[in-house]
Amino acid sequence: MDELFEKSLLYDFYGELLTDHQKSIYERSVFDDMSLAEVAEEEGISRQGVHDLIKRCDKILQGYEDKLHLVSKFVSIKKKASDISLLSGEMDPAKMKGALKEIAKLSEGIIEEL
Amino acid sequence: MDELFEKSLLYDFYGELLTDHQKSIYERSVFDDMSLAEVAEEEGISRQGVHDLIKRCDKILQGYEDKLHLVSKFVSIKKKASDISLLSGEMDPAKMKGALKEIAKLSEGIIEEL
Repeated sequence: MDELFEKSLLYDFYGELLTDHQKSIYERSVFDDMSLAEVAEEEGISRQGVHDLIKRCDKILQGYEDKLHLVSKFVSIKKKASDISLLSGEMDPAKMKGALKEIAKLSEGIIEEL
Repeated sequence: MDELFEKSLLYDFYGELLTDHQKSIYERSVFDDMSLAEVAEEEGISRQGVHDLIKRCDKILQGYEDKLHLVSKFVSIKKKASDISLLSGEMDPAKMKGALKEIAKLSEGIIEEL
């Protein structure tokens, strides 16, 4: 998985468990693509301080995932839902029965995962 | 939602964020249906201590849900997946197209929620 995409998933799921201060700096540095120097200047702290805070947030977010595994669950469910969505577009009447059978498996897979 | 079922969902999702000590007491009191007195005796603490610990855990678990809303998201996804599963059992060829159309909506609903 692309590193930024992975960070954004972790942040989407667990970001609310960070403090407002952490969120604000993390968002600007990681997602708004501001430089450490820019964020440091805005916050009145050192570049090293911004750097350390980002590393710390990454560790906190990854720590939640290591315990709860909700992002990996979500990725797997989303993949199955996308496959169902594709299969549900089957227009050939002769293939609909097969599509429904595949959909049955996928939907049961989602239910088991939850 | 049934209170015990709700507690078990919250615990399934966020229980790993409790300490081992909290988990152990919470599981026995809430899920194994042991009395406060029994758990208190096993742990060598007062009944009031067990009672307070359970209330505190309930508050912690609910606090995570209030911030992250992952249980409510997953309950909603599970409902949609169950509906898809039911629809995928359609055996009447004349109704398969309609079933696939419903499934398309539901699967897109799941994707949007994630």
